[in-house]
Amino acid sequence: MIVESSPARTRELVREHRRGGQHIAVVPTMGALHAGHVSLIEAAREECDCVVATIFVNPTQFAPGEDFEKYPRTLEDDLARCEAAGADLVFTPQTSAMYADDAQTTVVVSELTKVLEGAHRPSHFDGVTTVVAKLFHITEPDRAYFGQKDFQQQLIIRQMVGDLDFGLQIVTCPIIREPDGLAMSSRNRYLSASQRRQSLALHQALTRADELAREGASAGDIQQEMRQILGTAPGVKPDYAVVVDATTLLEPAGDQKTVVALVAARVGDTRLIDNQILQLR
Amino acid sequence: MIVESSPARTRELVREHRRGGQHIAVVPTMGALHAGHVSLIEAAREECDCVVATIFVNPTQFAPGEDFEKYPRTLEDDLARCEAAGADLVFTPQTSAMYADDAQTTVVVSELTKVLEGAHRPSHFDGVTTVVAKLFHITEPDRAYFGQKDFQQQLIIRQMVGDLDFGLQIVTCPIIREPDGLAMSSRNRYLSASQRRQSLALHQALTRADELAREGASAGDIQQEMRQILGTAPGVKPDYAVVVDATTLLEPAGDQKTVVALVAARVGDTRLIDNQILQLR
Repeated sequence: MIVESSPARTRELVREHRRGGQHIAVVPTMGALHAGHVSLIEAAREECDCVVATIFVNPTQFAPGEDFEKYPRTLEDDLARCEAAGADLVFTPQTSAMYADDAQTTVVVSELTKVLEGAHRPSHFDGVTTVVAKLFHITEPDRAYFGQKDFQQQLIIRQMVGDLDFGLQIVTCPIIREPDGLAMSSRNRYLSASQRRQSLALHQALTRADELAREGASAGDIQQEMRQILGTAPGVKPDYAVVVDATTLLEPAGDQKTVVALVAARVGDTRLIDNQILQLR
Repeated sequence: MIVESSPARTRELVREHRRGGQHIAVVPTMGALHAGHVSLIEAAREECDCVVATIFVNPTQFAPGEDFEKYPRTLEDDLARCEAAGADLVFTPQTSAMYADDAQTTVVVSELTKVLEGAHRPSHFDGVTTVVAKLFHITEPDRAYFGQKDFQQQLIIRQMVGDLDFGLQIVTCPIIREPDGLAMSSRNRYLSASQRRQSLALHQALTRADELAREGASAGDIQQEMRQILGTAPGVKPDYAVVVDATTLLEPAGDQKTVVALVAARVGDTRLIDNQILQLR
């Protein structure tokens, strides 16, 4: 496994693989890798000839006051996980190599970014789409792997890829959970033991949502029940709990069968998100 | 020469060339081809193995009230010129193939787009950068050719390519002029015979700017003289006449040697632009 910090050299390494006729995968990450990231690298390993992981804590997707400074940096452990999962190349740029002082270009997705995470984290998604476009241009992949945990993010990236005609496919992989149901997240390590227990409310709300959907409940009723669960859970401050169209993130049409339940909440200072696809009856 | 309207099929055709080890050039145009465009295709032919020209009158770079509807469409003549100049492939998409109904992604360059053309043509450059990013993704070139006539445009595209790490090089080719000095433009055909004569004032102002620069005049004095010439030319309504830093388009620093003189004016209903690099003494 090669570890490379130069964008130009990374592109050249990938192009050598491509000239050999190989299919290229990229798995963009901010490091602090957990079993969720590992599952993305493993899926890429399964489906492509050359697997590139990227590790870059992107400053432009953190809003002022968010946890950019204290975001966990665990490079040595990350590289070991990348290698064990089968990555061929890990791209680990410095911030100065990614953003020139006079940089002034942004990739903006206008509608999908207005709601949910976009409403709670101003400018977050502009930072995400811009850095992902850059990473796509540096690694020139055939397939790019993202986790369903960041449901809105993968939807926005799919929109960008379609709208701008990127010649690649987005693959979304299932949420990986702790044995008790908490969705894997680099931010889980911020949680104290008691917060860790309190954070299970998110998964409980989604599990109940799935039960209600199977019993034939409406989107509105499911949403109300999730809000009830999160609103009364000790130590949990909900940001949102919604059941929406899984493509537009807007209120589902009356006859819609596939929707997504999305929740976001603070447990202490830690902001957690989770989601679940639902089939309405 | 192949003519192809499908984005997916165009990408596939270009990729076949790339798999053969060829270097790819793209020459993006809005059709209504003249000797300026031909010089771009010829330069590309000289330097690359596979030359792709694109012909697409991009609606999103026309502001409301501009000449999108009446912009000249001369496809048959354009294709003949492409073939004569040595293009291998011409990409001629329909608008519906370039913009899905739910498209919502824009590539925005924030600073260079605020002045000059950007100030006079709101949203114009957002349309340009977005469609050029799309064309780059569809044709995946090693080099892309633009004319110096649209000086600000090529600067903005260079900025976008650098900021977003596109793996390609921008080549800017010299302005091609009519024998009497008028810069070639698809919009010149809008001019009546008398407007055609009046339009020479733009080139006269720039020629005088070049003389003054050689004589040691300051940027400020040159600018004033150009405004005098354009301001008193019959039938010419100047939008701007400036001498600015050739990289930032801002007022040149006192000791700066290479600057650019840029002019824009209306002759009748037709808006014309021109420019000239100056070496100050």
